[in-house]
Amino acid sequence: MKINFYKELEKKYEEIYLIHEAKSILRWDEHVMLPLGAHSYRTDQYVTLQLLSHQKIRDKKLYNLIKKSERIKKLNIWEKKNLHLIKKHYTESSVLDDKLIEKTTRAQSDLSKLWLEFREKKKSSFKPFIPKLEKLLGLIRIEAKILSKKKKCSLYDAQLDHYEMGLKSDKIDVIFDQLISFLPDLLKEVLNFQKKKKIIPLKKDLFPDLPEILERMNKKFMCALGFNFLYGRLDVSVHPFCGGTYRDVRITTRYEKNYFDSLMAVLHETGHAFYNLGTPEKWKYQAVGEPLGMAVHESQSLFWEMQVCRSYEFLKFAMSIFEKWGGLEINKKENNAENFYKIFTKVKPSFIRVNADEVTYPLHVILRYKIEKELIEGNMKVKDIPKVWNMYMKKYLGITPKNNLEGCLQDTHWFDGTFGYFPTYTLGALYAAQFFAKAKKQIPSLSNEIAKGKFTKLLKWLRDNIHQKGSLYTSDELIKKVTGEELNIEYFKNHLVERYLN
Amino acid sequence: MKINFYKELEKKYEEIYLIHEAKSILRWDEHVMLPLGAHSYRTDQYVTLQLLSHQKIRDKKLYNLIKKSERIKKLNIWEKKNLHLIKKHYTESSVLDDKLIEKTTRAQSDLSKLWLEFREKKKSSFKPFIPKLEKLLGLIRIEAKILSKKKKCSLYDAQLDHYEMGLKSDKIDVIFDQLISFLPDLLKEVLNFQKKKKIIPLKKDLFPDLPEILERMNKKFMCALGFNFLYGRLDVSVHPFCGGTYRDVRITTRYEKNYFDSLMAVLHETGHAFYNLGTPEKWKYQAVGEPLGMAVHESQSLFWEMQVCRSYEFLKFAMSIFEKWGGLEINKKENNAENFYKIFTKVKPSFIRVNADEVTYPLHVILRYKIEKELIEGNMKVKDIPKVWNMYMKKYLGITPKNNLEGCLQDTHWFDGTFGYFPTYTLGALYAAQFFAKAKKQIPSLSNEIAKGKFTKLLKWLRDNIHQKGSLYTSDELIKKVTGEELNIEYFKNHLVERYLN
Repeated sequence: MKINFYKELEKKYEEIYLIHEAKSILRWDEHVMLPLGAHSYRTDQYVTLQLLSHQKIRDKKLYNLIKKSERIKKLNIWEKKNLHLIKKHYTESSVLDDKLIEKTTRAQSDLSKLWLEFREKKKSSFKPFIPKLEKLLGLIRIEAKILSKKKKCSLYDAQLDHYEMGLKSDKIDVIFDQLISFLPDLLKEVLNFQKKKKIIPLKKDLFPDLPEILERMNKKFMCALGFNFLYGRLDVSVHPFCGGTYRDVRITTRYEKNYFDSLMAVLHETGHAFYNLGTPEKWKYQAVGEPLGMAVHESQSLFWEMQVCRSYEFLKFAMSIFEKWGGLEINKKENNAENFYKIFTKVKPSFIRVNADEVTYPLHVILRYKIEKELIEGNMKVKDIPKVWNMYMKKYLGITPKNNLEGCLQDTHWFDGTFGYFPTYTLGALYAAQFFAKAKKQIPSLSNEIAKGKFTKLLKWLRDNIHQKGSLYTSDELIKKVTGEELNIEYFKNHLVERYLN
Repeated sequence: MKINFYKELEKKYEEIYLIHEAKSILRWDEHVMLPLGAHSYRTDQYVTLQLLSHQKIRDKKLYNLIKKSERIKKLNIWEKKNLHLIKKHYTESSVLDDKLIEKTTRAQSDLSKLWLEFREKKKSSFKPFIPKLEKLLGLIRIEAKILSKKKKCSLYDAQLDHYEMGLKSDKIDVIFDQLISFLPDLLKEVLNFQKKKKIIPLKKDLFPDLPEILERMNKKFMCALGFNFLYGRLDVSVHPFCGGTYRDVRITTRYEKNYFDSLMAVLHETGHAFYNLGTPEKWKYQAVGEPLGMAVHESQSLFWEMQVCRSYEFLKFAMSIFEKWGGLEINKKENNAENFYKIFTKVKPSFIRVNADEVTYPLHVILRYKIEKELIEGNMKVKDIPKVWNMYMKKYLGITPKNNLEGCLQDTHWFDGTFGYFPTYTLGALYAAQFFAKAKKQIPSLSNEIAKGKFTKLLKWLRDNIHQKGSLYTSDELIKKVTGEELNIEYFKNHLVERYLN
């Protein structure tokens, strides 16, 4: 009979999960569909659901069910982990009161609206952001203080834990120091090495400048990789993202000057989408059924974007899509896989993170990490962000942004209240390299398959080894299970050397 | 101090209102955006919010606040009416339990999914609908029985009250009998009269067959009437509708064979949108701030679609939009306002209600009214719907549908669980004629303004007289306030005679 307490807990959690899903649709809609004048009313709806789910998760009745479930001995490993995750969710929520949640959500919404407006109008002044960002950061620091006490960790570590459970800045420091120890030198070497390669520039009107043609190509790529539009969508937003709900996964991209930027965003987000779509059906609407933290999530997007889709084999296949659906005229001069591969693997220090190459990408992340850590710990002022940003850009990449749109205003994260997320991109790149090395070993025909545009085996490998595991393991456990060893930076390093110095 | 109880009640109601708004976005998304495979998961989200709002509205604490507020003497008329409406909402919800709500919502969702599939695949068999519709109707009848006891009325009247407060079938019978007493004869007369008019048929490729051109034209019309896209959207769905939330009003249309059908749907839904967008800001998120029942709501859509936009003056203006945005070549032969007016006012018995002319439209409604009343009262079986439908079509309009797609499967209403809504269309037409007659008197320049594409004064008249009143008055009170007399069928009759026999 005792097992019923646990089942009752699952039922209660399902309700909370489904409120989150409704919120997720409101959020997607806000970024893709919402008329501009309705922004503040959308916040009212969002806050209402936010408070409802918060009240449900910190409910004493839920806690009693957790306590009773903990006494049940015959729970299986999935149930045990589920219980553990729900308890963690409860524990963290129980110390945060409704008013703080509401204030933070409203401040986030207010700031992200301003950010969107500036982006749409191409305005780059940082000054108008200062008071709003100070306010939001203040609220996030209050929350971080409360949680850091509960978790006995630093403020920034409390933030990290939101996105990647148990991640500490000590660990990040070690990894980032390792990266810093070889990346700047490697970058120089690659830039030198590249000089020998002759890249023939592409014509500007490579594809018809019609959004529907570009979108169709993107969709053809998604379908080729294995995306099923019965369970998802592709749309347009100011900043590409992956949202949606269980078996309804919605990715976005944007169409700016260079079509390939839009395509790479699509391939990246498709990797996220595959993870969300591949979670275990048996654990639908439960904590243990969700994808793991954001480091593994980013590994899934970068696995496709960087490991698979920037490979020479993939570009051989891609040419056929460019030709058939984009009307590209293949020729021996510039429009061929060899030249495209050179373009897709061209390394060049640049301003925009999401368009950066693999070698410089971690430097973009380290810069952001250093700034956001100081902001959260209270060691740096909001008004100094542009100055410090530009200082690091100069130091790491040797370039200086002309304005804040290609500097500290480029990413949505801080203006959405997301602090502590950035490191997961680079951890994700490391995981991705290690996963891909393993997949290549276990699927000997992989290179051939990619060149033929066949991704079924590869997607199945990811499904079986990663997606279907949900949150059963920690990231550390998962990588050991899948690759037989701990996270090892050498895989990423080897990948860079192999791809960029060969 | 007592007034605080009422303010607390408003605050509680606001929360319920905002949960409804979130549901409304989920519903809009379901019809416009949702990937087909995600339908059942969407139902899970929807049911969760449905139950949450249901629990909130039947909460004892809410009831206590209602009771305490009723003892406050200094409430103003808006507050009093708001209290009255919230109490009604509470009273009705308190007798319906969660399980019934959940079962009904799931049965609705299940059936509407089937209906959408059939529409998309152009399948017309009624048989697969029978068990699902029987199930849903059974649940709706259980609800109607419970409510009819509470309200001391018939089952069907309990249904009517959902859409038009206090409306009784006795009243509808009187009105519909009046209509039946002259409409069939008038129809014959009009058909005869029309023979004298020479309509020159339009070419088939009047406009480029590109959705973006047709959509652009529709949007130009919406803007011309006064729709502000800062607060709304136009999209595509299987069945046109008006949805969305406070100051975020979203209408849809569909693009089939005839562009003008899509345009008329847009003009109709724009009328609904104006009403939703024009409600009093002071009563945002409160019951009294909402549009009145559906009869007045339909009056607002038909006011624009039928009274304004099928007039000769409007078509004079419309030609300029067709020319400028649709590339129509104006000529003396067929492409001119005179010939278009004949086309837009052509009366012809036809199968599809939403495309029907003004003279035959009420007959479509009466047919549906007769069937749904019997269904709800338990006097008719679901399996007999097609037979009875076709019998009435023959009787009233003299035509027989080739299949159920142009027969009983054409409307979404019953398959969405909406029974008791149809009569409001025809009541709406009567209200619209009476309102328009008054507006014409109070704005002497109206005909000229319409011909010039100027609608500011007219929209302001609607705003001031109708939209801004929210739900302060009953429909009966409102029409008296605005036009000085009770609902009078003569205005509609005169309108038909004037437009179709002149």
